[in-house]
Amino acid sequence: MNHEELDASLDSFGDALASATRVTPGNALRPEDIAVAGAKPSDEVAQYALHLGDDALILAQRLSHWISRAPEIEEDIALGNIALDVLGHARSFLTYAGLAWDKSEDDLAYWREEEDFTSLQIVEQPNGHFGVTIMRQLIISIYQHLLYSKLLESTDETIAAICAKAVKEVDYHRDHSAAWTIRLGQGTEESAAKMRHALEVLWPYTGEMFQDEELHRTLGDVAVLPSTLREAWEKEITDVLAEAGLEIPKSGMAMAHGRVGEHSEHLGFILAEMQVLARKHPGASW
Amino acid sequence: MNHEELDASLDSFGDALASATRVTPGNALRPEDIAVAGAKPSDEVAQYALHLGDDALILAQRLSHWISRAPEIEEDIALGNIALDVLGHARSFLTYAGLAWDKSEDDLAYWREEEDFTSLQIVEQPNGHFGVTIMRQLIISIYQHLLYSKLLESTDETIAAICAKAVKEVDYHRDHSAAWTIRLGQGTEESAAKMRHALEVLWPYTGEMFQDEELHRTLGDVAVLPSTLREAWEKEITDVLAEAGLEIPKSGMAMAHGRVGEHSEHLGFILAEMQVLARKHPGASW
Repeated sequence: MNHEELDASLDSFGDALASATRVTPGNALRPEDIAVAGAKPSDEVAQYALHLGDDALILAQRLSHWISRAPEIEEDIALGNIALDVLGHARSFLTYAGLAWDKSEDDLAYWREEEDFTSLQIVEQPNGHFGVTIMRQLIISIYQHLLYSKLLESTDETIAAICAKAVKEVDYHRDHSAAWTIRLGQGTEESAAKMRHALEVLWPYTGEMFQDEELHRTLGDVAVLPSTLREAWEKEITDVLAEAGLEIPKSGMAMAHGRVGEHSEHLGFILAEMQVLARKHPGASW
Repeated sequence: MNHEELDASLDSFGDALASATRVTPGNALRPEDIAVAGAKPSDEVAQYALHLGDDALILAQRLSHWISRAPEIEEDIALGNIALDVLGHARSFLTYAGLAWDKSEDDLAYWREEEDFTSLQIVEQPNGHFGVTIMRQLIISIYQHLLYSKLLESTDETIAAICAKAVKEVDYHRDHSAAWTIRLGQGTEESAAKMRHALEVLWPYTGEMFQDEELHRTLGDVAVLPSTLREAWEKEITDVLAEAGLEIPKSGMAMAHGRVGEHSEHLGFILAEMQVLARKHPGASW
């Protein structure tokens, strides 16, 4: 069997595996399909896809650390599934962005420096205790659900298609984190105190999620102006928090600048772990 | 809303999430269903379920370490999915075993000591480089595929039902690791050398997989005599290795005793990481 046949055979093995997972929410629009069928995006569209992809990529890194470390095996699996869903979204967005610059998803994930990452600072915040992870997920998944829902009407067909799959998944992530928030907020005194702490710690990073940028205006109907999501997001999270017996902190929302590469001290460590293997053996499989 | 309603609401949230994942192979027979519907096993059947569950649990811990550390994002997701599949099998087997002793899956995972774990030593072997992980997975998933296939005819209906779901998933794991083994074995000189190394390192631990024990004979048609799997396993792995240009090492298969709690120095570290959170806050969610 020559190498082409081998690759073909590997591809079909890959398909066999994919067919097991194709029905799962984790699979979204397959990056392979985007790479083949996706029209090459403009530089601005690619930049926007990069923003969405970086948010998902860094969040997935954070979440994946819970696998085999959660307080219940069931929750191990739930957080693991959420991490893989989100990593699937990252793959699609990064693959699409890369088409503009002849880069693969792996090039973008493993070979950029910290200042080139455009993720929001909220996604790089430490997992902390379980309540912090759940609260971060609540904040982000309500946001992503609103954002991806609106992007279904993006005039960029590939972005709309990626979101069409992703929105169903973040809907479940939102339900999952809302259910835990309510359970823990209404649980013991200790669990309620921990949820209040989580909210205090994370709240300042929510401001950045709603900052409009020049890029959004340039893109027009391709993108969603983040500020337009704010009211619906606040209403939705306030409702969940109220049911959990929690209140929105009085502290303001800070204005961070992750989109232009200004990150907290945490991102460097996340990238170091994520990139070390790929950089050690460029082009190899370890 | 009182606590019962909350729990019910959480359960329905859980169902919403489960419905997203119910169609995935990772879900197997749901432990909740086993806990409710499963007949209480005899002590011997529970011991057998514990063997199968421990193998899956420890393997899942090992595999989960690749998530966000694999050489490609696509492989991150593939290994992550395999880890979650296997963790799902562990949940089912441990839940069933626990019915005999009024223990939950979490009791069994987090509150046993090293010498109480009955897993085979092959599953606790370090991930090593990517080739070692793939080779370990090839060895195990061919084995599990043969074992679970035979257990479809177990006279214990719960074990047969768990295997009916699990066998489809390990079939994909087998394809996946076979495809990588062939790709790497036929790849560069370096990749072939690494696969030969992986095989040398892991081969001694394959002997234990085929050791019959008193328990198997006691259980009769509930269980499968491990020695009866050996010939088919050797044929299948030899075929894959041949296609990869690899040969079975001349070193013998060692006789380890993981089933009676004799483990390599690695298991203690795996358990420490897995158990620390649950033990720190017993009964809490962090």
